[in-house]
Amino acid sequence: MSADRPDGDRFPWAAELDGLHAKVWERLARGVHDARAAARHPVLATISAAGPEARTVGLRRADRAAGEVEVHTDLGSDKVAELRADPRAALHVWDRKVQLQVRLRMKVEVLSGREVEERWRGIPQEGRLNYGGEPPPGTPIGHWRDHEATVARERFGVLLGRVEEIDAVVLGERPHRRALFRRADGWAGRWLAP
Amino acid sequence: MSADRPDGDRFPWAAELDGLHAKVWERLARGVHDARAAARHPVLATISAAGPEARTVGLRRADRAAGEVEVHTDLGSDKVAELRADPRAALHVWDRKVQLQVRLRMKVEVLSGREVEERWRGIPQEGRLNYGGEPPPGTPIGHWRDHEATVARERFGVLLGRVEEIDAVVLGERPHRRALFRRADGWAGRWLAP
Repeated sequence: MSADRPDGDRFPWAAELDGLHAKVWERLARGVHDARAAARHPVLATISAAGPEARTVGLRRADRAAGEVEVHTDLGSDKVAELRADPRAALHVWDRKVQLQVRLRMKVEVLSGREVEERWRGIPQEGRLNYGGEPPPGTPIGHWRDHEATVARERFGVLLGRVEEIDAVVLGERPHRRALFRRADGWAGRWLAP
Repeated sequence: MSADRPDGDRFPWAAELDGLHAKVWERLARGVHDARAAARHPVLATISAAGPEARTVGLRRADRAAGEVEVHTDLGSDKVAELRADPRAALHVWDRKVQLQVRLRMKVEVLSGREVEERWRGIPQEGRLNYGGEPPPGTPIGHWRDHEATVARERFGVLLGRVEEIDAVVLGERPHRRALFRRADGWAGRWLAP
């Protein structure tokens, strides 16, 4: 049936580069504000000494004007050590509702201490349990009960991602559409073969 | 309420290492057989010259006995070039229904030509459109319409992942449970701080 539809019927925003770029940031912003949106829980990929690593994170800020995204983290987690050694990262979202895959390529700065005081005040008590705990994440323990969830203000950090490239693919109908947007050319964008 | 439940009430399979290990492979197998299961569309992370890369893939095989997983690919895609240069990869699944995050660390072999003939025969015509297309994936094009979806048997390949480690986290209730299973110790597993 889809072949009979005029171009852009289901995905009018994907007909032009500007519309696709705007949709990417609109869906990321939705993830920040709606805990059930696809973009609330992207996958963050980093590089460790042993190879690539990928894990779910929570998206806390998405700023189109600055080209920045933010994730909160326990400073004792492996991803922080990995990003301090190599700040290059990728953030991946598959947004099924709009059939959009977003891949951000970015450099990540780890913020801590006074830099994150303001953000800490905005986190409810239950959420604060994600920052702290003894022993720290990834430490071998004898049994899963041998871990104490404690709130540790000094373990709260922020991963500030400066986006360099956005690779966006729309899969809803054929032909699939794929575009690359780069900070270096002012996010003008260009189409790529999907 | 969850604090009042006896341990393992909602996640009895996560009470012991064996049960958690079995659940990981059970959910991966479900992804292979059920297109709507979470594990059907994991995120594959690789390393390119520019940094980490992450994209959605389709899981086609999960073999607990061999510790192997399989993904089909267009041999013209960037991930194939990346894996030929560096075979280390991570496969990530967030399985919301059972609150389980699975992270596989693996080495990937790229199969092609005669090695994949049998698998090609099992792919329906519509699915074959994922292998081929001109120009090849990632090539700049003037407009999204400037791409022809063609079936190219010689562009069909298989990514055979030999799993080295499984990092599994169960997030459903506190304390969260996290375990590491390694091929090197016969997948015996050990608990890690979450």
